[in-house]
Amino acid sequence: MSQPLRLGIAGLGTVGIGVVKIIQHQADLLTMRTGRPVTISAISARTRNKDRGVDLSGYAWEDDPVALAKRDDVDVYVELMGGSNGPAKASTEAALAAGKDVVTANKALLALHGQALAEQAEAGGQVIRYEAAVAGGIPVIKALTEGLAGNAITRVMGVMNGTCNYILTRMEATGQGYNALFDEANKLGYLEADPNLDVGGIDAGHKLSLLSSIAFGTQVDFDGVELEGIQRISLEDIKDAADMGYRVKLLGVAQMTDRGLEQRMSPCLVPADSPLGQLEGGTNMVVIEGDSVGQVVLRGAGAGEGPTASAVLGDICDIARGYRYPVFGQPAASLTAAPRAKSATPAPYYLRLALQDKPGALAKITSILGEAGVSIHRMRQYDHQDDIAPVLLVTHATTRTELDVALTAMENTDVVTAKPVALRIETV
Amino acid sequence: MSQPLRLGIAGLGTVGIGVVKIIQHQADLLTMRTGRPVTISAISARTRNKDRGVDLSGYAWEDDPVALAKRDDVDVYVELMGGSNGPAKASTEAALAAGKDVVTANKALLALHGQALAEQAEAGGQVIRYEAAVAGGIPVIKALTEGLAGNAITRVMGVMNGTCNYILTRMEATGQGYNALFDEANKLGYLEADPNLDVGGIDAGHKLSLLSSIAFGTQVDFDGVELEGIQRISLEDIKDAADMGYRVKLLGVAQMTDRGLEQRMSPCLVPADSPLGQLEGGTNMVVIEGDSVGQVVLRGAGAGEGPTASAVLGDICDIARGYRYPVFGQPAASLTAAPRAKSATPAPYYLRLALQDKPGALAKITSILGEAGVSIHRMRQYDHQDDIAPVLLVTHATTRTELDVALTAMENTDVVTAKPVALRIETV
Repeated sequence: MSQPLRLGIAGLGTVGIGVVKIIQHQADLLTMRTGRPVTISAISARTRNKDRGVDLSGYAWEDDPVALAKRDDVDVYVELMGGSNGPAKASTEAALAAGKDVVTANKALLALHGQALAEQAEAGGQVIRYEAAVAGGIPVIKALTEGLAGNAITRVMGVMNGTCNYILTRMEATGQGYNALFDEANKLGYLEADPNLDVGGIDAGHKLSLLSSIAFGTQVDFDGVELEGIQRISLEDIKDAADMGYRVKLLGVAQMTDRGLEQRMSPCLVPADSPLGQLEGGTNMVVIEGDSVGQVVLRGAGAGEGPTASAVLGDICDIARGYRYPVFGQPAASLTAAPRAKSATPAPYYLRLALQDKPGALAKITSILGEAGVSIHRMRQYDHQDDIAPVLLVTHATTRTELDVALTAMENTDVVTAKPVALRIETV
Repeated sequence: MSQPLRLGIAGLGTVGIGVVKIIQHQADLLTMRTGRPVTISAISARTRNKDRGVDLSGYAWEDDPVALAKRDDVDVYVELMGGSNGPAKASTEAALAAGKDVVTANKALLALHGQALAEQAEAGGQVIRYEAAVAGGIPVIKALTEGLAGNAITRVMGVMNGTCNYILTRMEATGQGYNALFDEANKLGYLEADPNLDVGGIDAGHKLSLLSSIAFGTQVDFDGVELEGIQRISLEDIKDAADMGYRVKLLGVAQMTDRGLEQRMSPCLVPADSPLGQLEGGTNMVVIEGDSVGQVVLRGAGAGEGPTASAVLGDICDIARGYRYPVFGQPAASLTAAPRAKSATPAPYYLRLALQDKPGALAKITSILGEAGVSIHRMRQYDHQDDIAPVLLVTHATTRTELDVALTAMENTDVVTAKPVALRIETV
């Protein structure tokens, strides 16, 4: 029998324990499939004495993940602590320096330091694998990097934050507002310690920046992702979108244009009968478009012990089988620093305005849009109790730049009483 | 620069030409991603002198694919001729005997001879890759064999024949019957030379048997697939299914039960709002369920030049990158010959009966069902012009064995005027 592949696992939260369980319960299956035993040499976590529901007594303990990463009896360092800096970064660098391969679920680490880590790994002949960092159990990094390697990728889209999709679909289903469902998600433990990572779109933006890099052969550029969270989405927006045949999704889109690389993570309207529109609850979906393959859609659980551990094990099995390639699918040194597209590809937008209910108010707004070059496709004004009239508009395709000129001008009038909501309508 | 990976391509139909085009147009991309050039040394097809719209002058020509497969300047033999025997089989065996790796899109070849070919390949240290054989451009073999390798797979399902799904969804959309849409599909070139491969479920059954083998570590057993085509599906069935919130799909299901391996390819009713139920036209979908990952759904084009060539290139890139593992994900010698489940997992069934419109007819039918242990969930009799009454029934969950007893008894009465239609209602 071949030599075992020996792991050092840092981080024994939900995902770490999920990985330990699979390795304990599916040992024969893993050996059969990879041709060698997959074993755990050592583990590390913040707290040692804690009942985690699995027997960890057979593994060496390290208080310091850096010490774990460098151990002689570790072939692969499995980083499941999270955090873009601190111990996660230090231990990953230490593992690479010590000649270890790395498997991680850490999207923040790679979104912010991916290029440097890839260069370090490739200089030493190591691999870094991170299937679990994007879209939980869905093997999307593998599909993009390997299965679709014969394609020039034209666009990647995705709903990649289950918590946001849970809040948005529950708003629609229950008629409760954003705040109530934020609280519900919080009670269910769906939110990160810093909830803005979820509802602000940052977590999903990290994931998108990794997919972009693989898709377009560019250096990870998280700062280049135009970020907008779901905090300002109202029940009214969701109902109005539904009336028009759309649903609101926190949607990531990355595409290479002749104006540069466009990366956006923002609430958008998508057709209710499209695969993305049909997505419910915490499920994730990634849509990949390639010049040969057309559109491929992948759907599955975006988080949770089993799905995320499944993704970690997929990476471990590949390493056990001897599969090695560059971190972002081509050598780090060959990744280009793509210019950022200054403005998103033109699209229709949905606008919700709160107008003073007085003569000439609507005329003022429509003329502002006209002057900015934004033409109106449809408009609707609702019944209202007080003297603020809710007005909904759908524009024809326009650039965000033109739209922003109009929105700023509106805010400077005396008839718009609140910051307008503008949601892109995405063709999917 | 590393040595080029040199291909010999046999078969220059749609897919073969698609592969040549990608290799010609994306040469730089492929080199960047795999670390070495991917080149074509030689080609073979039935007819040499034919304008195929691409420049083939730089490649050596072989009339005989067996000669092509053995050439010294070929590292990977790419078999795109099709057919379960004859030249496809002979040349694949010759390639393996000569120490070449094989990439193929040939589901029939592997469904019927997969075990022997895998044993031959593994004895010589060669690989056979066949992503294009199942579900066109969807990287499903890769997802199942690699990405989900940490899972005990519990069930695999799929709509994997685009032509059947085209006919079924067009019947619903246009209100035309099966025969009219069979003719339409034929005119559009969607049908195989032997249309029974499509509408009889054989082609999709081949694909299912390959997925089963990987999923459950069993020897490919195409003969163990319970096959039923779509030829007897009427417009009435489709409308009635829609009324009840279902759609009719030619659905493959493979699951390991304590009664043995269950493999079915048959028209089923699936919930209209499920991912499988929402599938339109020639699109394919595969649903994989694993003990850790839960449900993963993959969707994309099931056929066509670009999508199928994309899958072939995915395999070629893996080989270029040096990725090697057994044909069915674990050594061929370790694949078990699973016993076949004698009867499918119990499920509700939809029945359409044509009854003589005379007193006691319905009583006779319902008592036959009762005697066979099949209980009725809902029943409906339609208005009718002549003296034949169409009766629709949905049963509670029952075994197919019990149901078949009832169906046979019905056919032996004087009140049932045509062979009953029975469609399984699948939980998805």
